Amino acid sequence: VRRVKSSPVTFSARSSGGRYAIRVEPGALRRLGSWIRDRHLGERAVVVSDATVAALYAPAALRSLERAGIDATLVSFPPGERSKNLRTLERLYEQFVDLGVDRDSLVIALGGGVVGDVAGFVAATYLRGLPLVHVPTTVLAQADSAIGGKTGVDLPRGKNLVGAFYAPRLVVIDPVLVATLPPREARAGLAEVAKVAMALDARLFRHLERHADELANLDSTPLVPAIVAAARAKAKIVSEDERDRGRRRILNYGHTVGHALEALGGYRRWLHGEAVALGMRAAARVSVLEGRLSAADEARQGHLLDALGLDAAFPRVSIGKLFSHLELDKKSRRGEVAFVLTAGVGVARFRRNLSREVLVRALTSLGAKP
Amino acid sequence: VRRVKSSPVTFSARSSGGRYAIRVEPGALRRLGSWIRDRHLGERAVVVSDATVAALYAPAALRSLERAGIDATLVSFPPGERSKNLRTLERLYEQFVDLGVDRDSLVIALGGGVVGDVAGFVAATYLRGLPLVHVPTTVLAQADSAIGGKTGVDLPRGKNLVGAFYAPRLVVIDPVLVATLPPREARAGLAEVAKVAMALDARLFRHLERHADELANLDSTPLVPAIVAAARAKAKIVSEDERDRGRRRILNYGHTVGHALEALGGYRRWLHGEAVALGMRAAARVSVLEGRLSAADEARQGHLLDALGLDAAFPRVSIGKLFSHLELDKKSRRGEVAFVLTAGVGVARFRRNLSREVLVRALTSLGAKP
Repeated sequence: VRRVKSSPVTFSARSSGGRYAIRVEPGALRRLGSWIRDRHLGERAVVVSDATVAALYAPAALRSLERAGIDATLVSFPPGERSKNLRTLERLYEQFVDLGVDRDSLVIALGGGVVGDVAGFVAATYLRGLPLVHVPTTVLAQADSAIGGKTGVDLPRGKNLVGAFYAPRLVVIDPVLVATLPPREARAGLAEVAKVAMALDARLFRHLERHADELANLDSTPLVPAIVAAARAKAKIVSEDERDRGRRRILNYGHTVGHALEALGGYRRWLHGEAVALGMRAAARVSVLEGRLSAADEARQGHLLDALGLDAAFPRVSIGKLFSHLELDKKSRRGEVAFVLTAGVGVARFRRNLSREVLVRALTSLGAKP
Repeated sequence: VRRVKSSPVTFSARSSGGRYAIRVEPGALRRLGSWIRDRHLGERAVVVSDATVAALYAPAALRSLERAGIDATLVSFPPGERSKNLRTLERLYEQFVDLGVDRDSLVIALGGGVVGDVAGFVAATYLRGLPLVHVPTTVLAQADSAIGGKTGVDLPRGKNLVGAFYAPRLVVIDPVLVATLPPREARAGLAEVAKVAMALDARLFRHLERHADELANLDSTPLVPAIVAAARAKAKIVSEDERDRGRRRILNYGHTVGHALEALGGYRRWLHGEAVALGMRAAARVSVLEGRLSAADEARQGHLLDALGLDAAFPRVSIGKLFSHLELDKKSRRGEVAFVLTAGVGVARFRRNLSREVLVRALTSLGAKP
């Protein structure tokens, strides 16, 4: 990653609990404490992280908090989607009791998507709600998941089945932090950036196309503006539809099939973003079969995902097994699959009842077993 | 319990999610289905209950729902505070997956305080929130806990440490249902009615005094208006302060010491209301020592609780152990005990920092071990 030269950017998102600021600034981690103090978010902080991120960034976070006069403690859990479960919540709650966490305390989620979801849910539910600050450390979390208040954990049979909408009081994005990401994980995060672009931001899509090679190598010059654009687009849409009942649902583009693949792979075979990229290819194919998308635009999306280093090979999974997971999707009702289609770059549409037959044809044509 | 003759009453409470109606009507359980259908709250319902209540009332609830064209299923768990934990949540979530609960489904909490808290939390968190209807079946739940949106479970070391504010869409109070309560439990519920009266409704307090003997025998003629008055007072105060940051906190009158006693007794020795009654006696004694309450008013509260059949004997527990639980109270901060004092019948006041010494003196004078 090349040195980041970009200047600070601040925007905000609206939630039922009020507006919250999203600050993007290289080196922001060092200023975390003073921003929290200036906003009177709490006298004590629990930094929740995973072991990998904690080793890299918890010392700097704790130092910044202590310099600002905020008592801070770290609690962490093993990294990865497999920690995103009720057992991890239980352990965190017990640690909160041990630490004497009270209503003057705030929770700081320091990490990627899993940390944000888990720590966010703990903040939403411990003592019926403590102030929450997100400090996302991955491309995926900075560009997407730290904004919008979705929190929760998985159940053995389905992703994100337990959760709450719980808005943070502040999101602090330090683009420098993604420099330590393993390349595979960074590229998986780019899939979520591409998703935001494909769903609602054609300009961002063109930026990604123009700089795909540099982005695949995680060059921060095009990466930081891409993260900012995706985060801004996300902030705008969640402000219009916090509860995911309307327009926000288009951000599930690629996620219906993506989540099902993740579950089929036991949350080991694919990273979330990798599964989403495959899901985006499936959604585009469905959209072509439905006469909504031109083959040229499907190819355009395919080329971008290829150029970002995201695997094109759809797995030889059984359609029957895939469907059993699709029906557990939170958007599904009475066994009908809800789906986000695309009508072109930057134009996604929510569709309540997709015919099972079209979905089978699309998945088969991509390589799934009939 | 004598036959209930009272006519229907409807009032409402305000929450961040909108107003919800509270309907009090003898025989309301039979009309549950049509009310839910009229409000379009869902096409399918999961009735969550405990085994005792389910045996008594689930058949009527399910019949009413099915008559209204709503698919309904019952799930239940063992009765009692000891079910109010993360393990019960996990089992309910798994049952929800088995049942294919989706976003067209609603949750109906049929039972007392524990059922309302647990089912309410599941409704708040499954698929990030499903519509919730409370059908309280105990005096405590009808007069108090079903209104105001508090949901949650206990941790091994403290009550209600995990939870969420989640407002119901409708509360259906059928006063006939309390007829089957064991007398001990009904009297414990009267303690919460007395608490509401002592904290903010002098008129209700006089009603309780006037009819204490009949109420102790669960005569519905004075009981139904007492429940209605308490529920109305509760609805008013939670509408002003949904999140329990201001005036609503006075409803914790008697609960600081009450919760600590419950924990010390392993949630077996006292029913919640019994512990609250002891906590009210402690709060009044503290208030006298602080010069806020006259000895005459302390005696007045004492006589009412006695007449309602609530044990006056403060246990010989150790003050040190009691304090270790007081400090885990959700209202406590940095080891200082927050407390609700009373300045007279119907006049409670929240107090942030109560001196430990006054509390020790009050508890000792009531019979706790120094």
